[in-house]
Amino acid sequence: MTAPLLNSIKFPKDLRALEKDQLIKLSKELRGFIINIVATKEGHLGASLGVVELTIALHYVFNTPSDLLVWDVGHQAYGHKILTGRRSTFHTNRQFKGISGFPKREESTYDTFGVGHSSTSISAALGMAMASKLKGDTQTQHIAVIGDASIASGMAFEGLNHAGVSDTNLLVILNDNAIGIDPSVGALKQYLTNVKKGTQKQDNIFEALNFEYAGPIDGHDIHKLIDELKRLKTISGPKLLHVITTKGKGLKQAETDQVKYHAPGKFDAKTGELLKKAFINQPPKYQDVFGKTILELAKTNKNIVGITPAMPTGSSLKYMMSEMPDRAFDVGIAEQHAVTLAAGMATQGLIPFCNIYSTFLQRAYDQIIHDVALQKLPVVFCLDRAGLVGEDGATHHGAFDLAYLRCIPNLTIFAPRDEIELRDIMFTAQMGNLKQPIAIRYPRGRGITLDWKKPFKEIKIGTGKLLKKGNNIAVLSIGAISKNVTEAINSINNHDKIAHYDMRFVAPLDETLLHDIMKNHTSIITIEDGVITGGFGSSILEFAAANNYKNSIKNLGIPNKFIEQGSIDELQKLCSIDADSIKQILSTYL
Amino acid sequence: MTAPLLNSIKFPKDLRALEKDQLIKLSKELRGFIINIVATKEGHLGASLGVVELTIALHYVFNTPSDLLVWDVGHQAYGHKILTGRRSTFHTNRQFKGISGFPKREESTYDTFGVGHSSTSISAALGMAMASKLKGDTQTQHIAVIGDASIASGMAFEGLNHAGVSDTNLLVILNDNAIGIDPSVGALKQYLTNVKKGTQKQDNIFEALNFEYAGPIDGHDIHKLIDELKRLKTISGPKLLHVITTKGKGLKQAETDQVKYHAPGKFDAKTGELLKKAFINQPPKYQDVFGKTILELAKTNKNIVGITPAMPTGSSLKYMMSEMPDRAFDVGIAEQHAVTLAAGMATQGLIPFCNIYSTFLQRAYDQIIHDVALQKLPVVFCLDRAGLVGEDGATHHGAFDLAYLRCIPNLTIFAPRDEIELRDIMFTAQMGNLKQPIAIRYPRGRGITLDWKKPFKEIKIGTGKLLKKGNNIAVLSIGAISKNVTEAINSINNHDKIAHYDMRFVAPLDETLLHDIMKNHTSIITIEDGVITGGFGSSILEFAAANNYKNSIKNLGIPNKFIEQGSIDELQKLCSIDADSIKQILSTYL
Repeated sequence: MTAPLLNSIKFPKDLRALEKDQLIKLSKELRGFIINIVATKEGHLGASLGVVELTIALHYVFNTPSDLLVWDVGHQAYGHKILTGRRSTFHTNRQFKGISGFPKREESTYDTFGVGHSSTSISAALGMAMASKLKGDTQTQHIAVIGDASIASGMAFEGLNHAGVSDTNLLVILNDNAIGIDPSVGALKQYLTNVKKGTQKQDNIFEALNFEYAGPIDGHDIHKLIDELKRLKTISGPKLLHVITTKGKGLKQAETDQVKYHAPGKFDAKTGELLKKAFINQPPKYQDVFGKTILELAKTNKNIVGITPAMPTGSSLKYMMSEMPDRAFDVGIAEQHAVTLAAGMATQGLIPFCNIYSTFLQRAYDQIIHDVALQKLPVVFCLDRAGLVGEDGATHHGAFDLAYLRCIPNLTIFAPRDEIELRDIMFTAQMGNLKQPIAIRYPRGRGITLDWKKPFKEIKIGTGKLLKKGNNIAVLSIGAISKNVTEAINSINNHDKIAHYDMRFVAPLDETLLHDIMKNHTSIITIEDGVITGGFGSSILEFAAANNYKNSIKNLGIPNKFIEQGSIDELQKLCSIDADSIKQILSTYL
Repeated sequence: MTAPLLNSIKFPKDLRALEKDQLIKLSKELRGFIINIVATKEGHLGASLGVVELTIALHYVFNTPSDLLVWDVGHQAYGHKILTGRRSTFHTNRQFKGISGFPKREESTYDTFGVGHSSTSISAALGMAMASKLKGDTQTQHIAVIGDASIASGMAFEGLNHAGVSDTNLLVILNDNAIGIDPSVGALKQYLTNVKKGTQKQDNIFEALNFEYAGPIDGHDIHKLIDELKRLKTISGPKLLHVITTKGKGLKQAETDQVKYHAPGKFDAKTGELLKKAFINQPPKYQDVFGKTILELAKTNKNIVGITPAMPTGSSLKYMMSEMPDRAFDVGIAEQHAVTLAAGMATQGLIPFCNIYSTFLQRAYDQIIHDVALQKLPVVFCLDRAGLVGEDGATHHGAFDLAYLRCIPNLTIFAPRDEIELRDIMFTAQMGNLKQPIAIRYPRGRGITLDWKKPFKEIKIGTGKLLKKGNNIAVLSIGAISKNVTEAINSINNHDKIAHYDMRFVAPLDETLLHDIMKNHTSIITIEDGVITGGFGSSILEFAAANNYKNSIKNLGIPNKFIEQGSIDELQKLCSIDADSIKQILSTYL
């Protein structure tokens, strides 16, 4: 496909030199460009296809980068990247050393605010608008583009609530496509649906919050978009433009199966068909072990309920949601609510499994402490995507959870070594003996066990496990990173001296086992798929100090910096927690 | 004052035996009881006075504790406590080993959910309501009582958004008195004001979110309250009752000066006059050092702005807000928004001082990581009420901040030893050299320096300080707890062996100084007013391990459990970080 218009645009100023009538053709070219690259390089597809016209209209009407444009989440910003100097590098999207899959300040002055997590755009853009106001600058426009799933999150409401009385030059664009990664939920979603249908006669929420409300308008009608944006540009004070778009617009399959084409993997750019991978008998994804196991357990334990904040597909809670819709809940992008809802349920004897990606649990930190742990409510937190997550990069690594959870009293923390341990700890957690919350953290991707549907076994809380004997050096690992240790040890000829323990629990520590380990080994190496600072390894140092052990202890894990995107293998290598690096480190002890 | 009706009530069933006509008299007696006790024992006054009629009406109409009543925040729950079995122990309110100032599950079955932080009640009550629904229980009523300041927080919106589509038996009571601790702010507040004035004709936000809306009604008209609650009890699905009350109702001064009488200290129960403390020349409160210093700095640095989430008085940002209203902002109970707003401002070259109580910063943990630190935006976080806070108890201690902040890359963490260091680090932070965020944590209460308004001096980032020489044992303290160490050392006769270092920075550590310390002392004792697990002491263990030092290291601080209420002195003793305990520990080394 040739793309003469797109090829003529390096930066938005080139776009603004086009005639308005050329923009429909440009939309087509941009859409084609996105499809072609994502088809082979993978990435997020549907969201960017849905805002092609909006992206062009925004850069056409507004004087970016002087006017300040903030994209919420950033899944939808591929078109923006391509039009702002990154067309030629776009094929490196989400790759190690390539460009980020999200807007990122270091990458471009057009990326005014780094995103990844949702619902930050209104607060950020309002901050910029207040700065302009303070400087007496009445010219600069400040625009936040936010989806209907993201605007339902509490943080976005906080931003709207402040913006409504701020008297700043802020335009919020509500990109309403009724879907985030999964379909949107909640009362606000229903409200927006009524607005679109024309059945919501009164009760304009945004006007009640003192916004000038415009729309709803068709977000694929680029001329209408341009006219409306130009009109709103002349109006001072906070404004909201309600734009209706179709996620996946322009690729039939992506429009039809919006969940699958959010990030479809490789597909045929012409037909849209997903490329079928050759069938290989593979270990399951951890998320599926969770999703299928909770359903299995819920069938025999009527107190079990499942909660996900907007990740039915990503967490695989969808299996339970489809089979037991009255007991598994998608609460939308509302991690804070999800946790305290679970706490409320736990007070009434339910056993809530609250599944939240490790990186998003950061959003509910206070609720874990204040609503769950302080009250010793037996909520079961399942933290998916813990550790390095790969291509989503710095905003999404679940790097901090062990460090930020470890300091909370009354919280059991477990990381399964494999699928079987994930199943068994879920089984253990629902037996009703725990009397306090537990956090179970497991990584993105597949495990290591083909035959994983074994009969359940209870795991004794606070017990680690010897995986391999050795009389000099003890490697203490936590969770699935154990695999790399085993591989490293197996690749060393004289590995008699090396012991390997899977500690399993970060809290409570297996102190009996640790006394044994400290007494019988001179050197200890800890390894975790998480930050070293304050993490699991640090808990071993604390144990040693409290008990006056003088063993040499080395902590391996994610170093004290933000890690960018790349494959998990590349990133593990970068952090020296891949099998090769571990082998090299072990060799220095032999 | 005699209180025959009140004295006849031990539990709400006794209340429900009264005639409706007796309730006005009971309100008077309950109000008098609260005033009398709080006048001498101190505590939160205004909020509980405002809901006397509401409290009585709720327990009169609903079958507590079978019906489940959740109070948001809990400042207003004194009447509830007194009517639910705690009249005779109420004089121990907020005292060490006494009853908690907030609802607390272990204290009473009438306290269905522990609170302290705001905006959790809707989520918690919805969780209970969903549990009832799942059990097929259609009888139990679930009530969340939430103030207008708290309902404006994002978490409450998340709860409303979910509740609106939940089809549960949930009643939200909006206690609208236009004030939290300080007057409410934001667009929602304006909206509610318009509703009260009758100038908000359309746009009912709660109806838009699918709630049955009732009110506004006079919250001091107990008969009307009872009628309305009885009516709403018969309506299924989510309902919201908008109740207008006056904070401090029934005590003239408390109604007039609502901010001061939120928690007025001791006062004359009859006249309402605050008891004047004998004038003593005292060191300032840390919060005032912050409040006056930011104003002083802002006068010469036009880029400085101040942000507080609903704590103008508590943080003392009020001084700047009153003198520079265009540069100091109360954003309401919206910690998430406050942090990302600051990040947005920082992208435009402003220097935001974002003042948040340590315990409430837990609400914005993700924003610190994702919006500020990842982008290295030079936001200045001032964390007031860090460490043990005293009578507010377990929900409010700023115990975790060093542990949860320490694992975040790109974040400088400083704790001033005294007022001068707080001033100097604020001065340093606004000079523009930092290029990354800084967190400054300081305690509740007064410092140690009368003559604190000294000329500013820059503090070199990452440098600790020798306070006292000694050649055997080194005590490493962080922040204001240094005072106890100094006192302990001074009380020991043979203290030549004991050195005392104020490390000042938890990140970056003063590694040069630490090498010196490790080489020249056999034993190291770390001390912090924060959790030991993962805290400052843990960072010293990490340094020692990384550098192969084998010194004996002992970590003092808050142990791995939640600490209840009491005076700061009592609690420091409990945690063995008071001067006496430190002295005893040091003596074992001599």
